[in-house]
Amino acid sequence: MAGNVPVNFEMIAAAARRLEGHARRTPLLSSPFLDEIAGRRVFIKAECLQHTGSFKFRGAWSAMTALPEAARGVIAFSSGNHAQGVAYAARLRGLPALIIMPEDAPAVKIANTRALGAEVRLYDRVTEDRDALGATLAQQRGLELIQPFDHPQVIAGQGTTGLEIADQARTEGIEDAQVLVCCGGGGLTSGIALALEHAAPKMLVRTVEPEGFDDVAQSLATGQVVENPTRSGLCDAIVTPRPGTLTWPILKRLCGPGLVVSDDDALRAMALAHDRLKLVLEPGGAVALAAALFHPDQIEGAAVIVTASGGNVDRAVFLRALAQGGADADC
Amino acid sequence: MAGNVPVNFEMIAAAARRLEGHARRTPLLSSPFLDEIAGRRVFIKAECLQHTGSFKFRGAWSAMTALPEAARGVIAFSSGNHAQGVAYAARLRGLPALIIMPEDAPAVKIANTRALGAEVRLYDRVTEDRDALGATLAQQRGLELIQPFDHPQVIAGQGTTGLEIADQARTEGIEDAQVLVCCGGGGLTSGIALALEHAAPKMLVRTVEPEGFDDVAQSLATGQVVENPTRSGLCDAIVTPRPGTLTWPILKRLCGPGLVVSDDDALRAMALAHDRLKLVLEPGGAVALAAALFHPDQIEGAAVIVTASGGNVDRAVFLRALAQGGADADC
Repeated sequence: MAGNVPVNFEMIAAAARRLEGHARRTPLLSSPFLDEIAGRRVFIKAECLQHTGSFKFRGAWSAMTALPEAARGVIAFSSGNHAQGVAYAARLRGLPALIIMPEDAPAVKIANTRALGAEVRLYDRVTEDRDALGATLAQQRGLELIQPFDHPQVIAGQGTTGLEIADQARTEGIEDAQVLVCCGGGGLTSGIALALEHAAPKMLVRTVEPEGFDDVAQSLATGQVVENPTRSGLCDAIVTPRPGTLTWPILKRLCGPGLVVSDDDALRAMALAHDRLKLVLEPGGAVALAAALFHPDQIEGAAVIVTASGGNVDRAVFLRALAQGGADADC
Repeated sequence: MAGNVPVNFEMIAAAARRLEGHARRTPLLSSPFLDEIAGRRVFIKAECLQHTGSFKFRGAWSAMTALPEAARGVIAFSSGNHAQGVAYAARLRGLPALIIMPEDAPAVKIANTRALGAEVRLYDRVTEDRDALGATLAQQRGLELIQPFDHPQVIAGQGTTGLEIADQARTEGIEDAQVLVCCGGGGLTSGIALALEHAAPKMLVRTVEPEGFDDVAQSLATGQVVENPTRSGLCDAIVTPRPGTLTWPILKRLCGPGLVVSDDDALRAMALAHDRLKLVLEPGGAVALAAALFHPDQIEGAAVIVTASGGNVDRAVFLRALAQGGADADC
């Protein structure tokens, strides 16, 4: 399925029809306390409430339901949210899923991916070539590769988030707003941007990344792909080294200047999401809210919409956010 | 408005029309991991995502929109969720709200109630008579009293939760299930029971209370009102001493045997709601989920529905739940 097939609005609309009744229509939340901090109305698209705790289920289901008839199963590389989205979508679809995970991935994530029904093949980051291993296994077993963002049907699936945002914002009387999206490889951002181009053309999509991993912001600023050094970070879900091959042209054409927040901003936003929204966010899923709350001068308009794209956080990290995330604001 | 007016299904349906577009239609969530623990399908009505972090906004809005034309404002007694629900509903409605709170209520809850636009009058639990104070202020200013549960329009408002449960469960293919409701004075439970009696007659509503505060379970078992000693507890939102005057006859007529869980059960359920649902629950809002997860032998049927009725928890209590709530089950 993947490759150079372009992604367009019709594919997103078609994905939405396939997701109907399978993915959750997540709520668009708000709080007067957050509006006060941000100095404008803030709407939060709570994708942490999606199946498997992140938006990744949308793209996985979209790809899974667009497979050729002959497909005997799927394969994916991931140690995080994409792994779980693919594993669960495959289980619901009755297809085998093979997930290639680094053997130093958190034990609990490996266990969860297995518990969702996937076969997990661990590899050694130093001595094994992940891509070669995956290609061999895919060919041997006739499995279809589902890339985390450089896959047209994955982008189309993530784009369904944008259709819901347009519809839910309209219900709130909002047609003109900046839409801040937590951005890694750009699958969610490019999908939302394509959806809103048609469904809410007055909205402007902007990427939000953690400091030190602002490859997309720099790429948007310079007009050509800039890379980060590959390393790990608190916002693990979105610390990709560069925008994707399929996603970059869409980001470049449609997205406004990228925003960047600190890890501390992300932790503070997690604490406020606990207090005011009753949501559990992971650091990478809190950066867009952090930008809205703590960098209001870099945003325009009377309302801003943010994605809260995932909530798969270790308890220890959540404890850290609550302990250092500013004054207790229990309501 | 209050008094001996009976509550019936039509009042709930009418409240639902008044709440449309004002209260949130909260999602009915689930997780395969929780199904595994419970040994059956578990559906969670996430009222912690309601405005002000608990179902109380429904009843407050229902009462507020049924006031006589001449009403110049509202008054309520509460140090918790009802205070915030009434304060916010009054603010949205453009009516003044006076909330009588004990002066030893948590400072942050007093501050939040004020921030939601209410006037807060503190009283001394020892030297002042709360009811006399409230009656005097209500008469002086022409304010309408909104009781937390013994008020027909409040019960009708909480009952709208039941209409949504019936509808959302049907979408999941569920028409026959036990519905476990976190129970204090019985406003939410009696409202849901009245709603389901008509909207999903095969469902059986059951109360869930914390150990030591099982006045409703004992009352249901004996057929007459049993009182707890009045004292504080971890599940502060639901540690009422006895079922209400209006709610008890409804509970007695419609509800199955009451369930009881320990504080430790509630904390463990909070930790699992963090891990698997990405929801922040308060202890009193987690007891129904705790019953479903940890007391499955006391429940019947292939599916169970639970209310997650509130999320207004101090960070310190949430930290405690995460720290002691069993093994980390991050997904």
